Amino acid sequence: MGPRRSMRDADCPYIAVCGPDPASEDAPAHAEHVGRLLADAGAVVVCGGHGGVMEAVARGAADRGGTVVGILPGADRREGNEHLTVRIATGLGELRNALIVRTVDAVIAVSGGFGTLSEVALALKTGVPVVGLDTWELSKAGRALDPDPIVRAATPEGAVREALRLAGARTRDRPEATGGRG
Amino acid sequence: MGPRRSMRDADCPYIAVCGPDPASEDAPAHAEHVGRLLADAGAVVVCGGHGGVMEAVARGAADRGGTVVGILPGADRREGNEHLTVRIATGLGELRNALIVRTVDAVIAVSGGFGTLSEVALALKTGVPVVGLDTWELSKAGRALDPDPIVRAATPEGAVREALRLAGARTRDRPEATGGRG
Amino acid sequence: MGPRRSMRDADCPYIAVCGPDPASEDAPAHAEHVGRLLADAGAVVVCGGHGGVMEAVARGAADRGGTVVGILPGADRREGNEHLTVRIATGLGELRNALIVRTVDAVIAVSGGFGTLSEVALALKTGVPVVGLDTWELSKAGRALDPDPIVRAATPEGAVREALRLAGARTRDRPEATGGRG
Amino acid sequence: MGPRRSMRDADCPYIAVCGPDPASEDAPAHAEHVGRLLADAGAVVVCGGHGGVMEAVARGAADRGGTVVGILPGADRREGNEHLTVRIATGLGELRNALIVRTVDAVIAVSGGFGTLSEVALALKTGVPVVGLDTWELSKAGRALDPDPIVRAATPEGAVREALRLAGARTRDRPEATGGRG
Repeated sequence: MGPRRSMRDADCPYIAVCGPDPASEDAPAHAEHVGRLLADAGAVVVCGGHGGVMEAVARGAADRGGTVVGILPGADRREGNEHLTVRIATGLGELRNALIVRTVDAVIAVSGGFGTLSEVALALKTGVPVVGLDTWELSKAGRALDPDPIVRAATPEGAVREALRLAGARTRDRPEATGGRG
Repeated sequence: MGPRRSMRDADCPYIAVCGPDPASEDAPAHAEHVGRLLADAGAVVVCGGHGGVMEAVARGAADRGGTVVGILPGADRREGNEHLTVRIATGLGELRNALIVRTVDAVIAVSGGFGTLSEVALALKTGVPVVGLDTWELSKAGRALDPDPIVRAATPEGAVREALRLAGARTRDRPEATGGRG
Repeated sequence: MGPRRSMRDADCPYIAVCGPDPASEDAPAHAEHVGRLLADAGAVVVCGGHGGVMEAVARGAADRGGTVVGILPGADRREGNEHLTVRIATGLGELRNALIVRTVDAVIAVSGGFGTLSEVALALKTGVPVVGLDTWELSKAGRALDPDPIVRAATPEGAVREALRLAGARTRDRPEATGGRG
Repeated sequence: MGPRRSMRDADCPYIAVCGPDPASEDAPAHAEHVGRLLADAGAVVVCGGHGGVMEAVARGAADRGGTVVGILPGADRREGNEHLTVRIATGLGELRNALIVRTVDAVIAVSGGFGTLSEVALALKTGVPVVGLDTWELSKAGRALDPDPIVRAATPEGAVREALRLAGARTRDRPEATGGRG
């Protein structure tokens, strides 16, 4: 009953893994490894449910018996990749990117297209920590943001470690962390 | 691996169970029984994640090892009841009612307040079958709708049987049922 | 500059007018008259932007030089009827019904299909007053709700008078009514 | 009737102007000038409705008799700045950023925080042209995107000229441009 226990626990971390579809180079392998590590750590993985990085992270997490939620842009649950264990068909199109960010404690961005960039930006705007693995760099007037708002990781192991640490710190800091309805 | 198998299966039915918080009279007992029966049938239960009928159906489904998704109106996952196995914190308020309806194959309405009525209406508007157990009756100009767009059930067993039947018929009738991306 | 003045005023009433597309019998004529009266009163009319009652109310309001906002379900502004003065293309499908309700001070339901019913229900759930003109009647266990949560009107004039009265009362009762950021 | 004519016309351009609140340096003056020019060109201005760049563009557009729509994150219309001529209170929080992008033909980003970055990203993802005035620069692996997906402008005049040009080209290219329901 161990896995079910953690699945029911309202305090287990929820981590979004964002990235492009299709994905190239190391991104799918990195994402799959991230998925495995997150599942092993008892985290719920949230993703956009499509292919590329989203499919790779889902495959990794599902292979370790983890929970992988796909928050889909379309209105048909079947549009999601085959590894998802829970499918939410939103019909919201790209608005669903904000939902992915909203329900998690931290975001891991693996590589990334413009959809990923929107998720990174929404997370930074709303105070959700972002860990990046070969992802976007942000600058204005020719100068990189300093300090960098994205925590950079060099490996899947580093990305998962940082995401879980930041998710834990954020949860502890929330004033209502000891109470709540649920 | 039996339960995990059905959880991964994109074709297992998703059934929303809607009802008021707080709930009175028979509604909590009915909802809990509905939750048990849906979990036993391998369906994913979707609800609004709060108390009353939503908590009762979650308790029933979770006690049988089922998957219960709470699509919460607020932005904090912890606001959901303790029986949920997956929590989506939307921050959408009552707009989340439409998301609940959108991701399922059928809706079971148990008793009901105005939130439930909105879910029933959105389901009927978008062609999602609705099964009612002691729920709203609709009329215009003093005459009940004929035929009644809500399939009435007298017991939890009847409600679940009808919902699964209607969900199956709907899935089979969708033109894309044999293909799809996922 | 009189009309522009009221358009800029954050405190002018916003009234949603909801109803079916297509509409039959008296509904289009009633809706058009409601639109004229609301525009004459300086209210901003909000509707779903399509045909039937939505087109009739837009025509009435636009003919009197009023502002008519269409909150459209699709992602293309051009799907709205020709009388709208402002078009918001949401791409949200029926989720947009909740947005219509959220931004107004009162709802007038003229006749009605299931979409209208969802708007009535969401308004009642969130405390937005609802005035009905030949619209839905709600009952449970064979008994009509008592008191009726919908304020019934017999004529367009009565519907507009009640909606403006209820909108005004609601605005005055809001604790922040004298301050606010804007 | 000139201004009303263009307001009713479904084909007048809708341009979003995005930027931070608070705004510093040249951003407010630039935004106000952008607002004036857009109103003079008969465009409908869409913004997030708050302060900073959003307030400055609204002031500029309203001073020229233009239409300025504020799509607000909160559920109270009065949270918008005083220059808005139409207020949509969404209660969606940062999800409303995607609505701003969805309803327009082009986006002008003036300076920018993370909210602006999310709007730029969502526009680029969904094919809505983006014109930048002292806004974000995007790079990966230490190299700026080439070609730059953001059309850079050096002045408010240049930004408005490019946005109107791109909006017009986009509208003409849409296959349904000659038909449509509205």
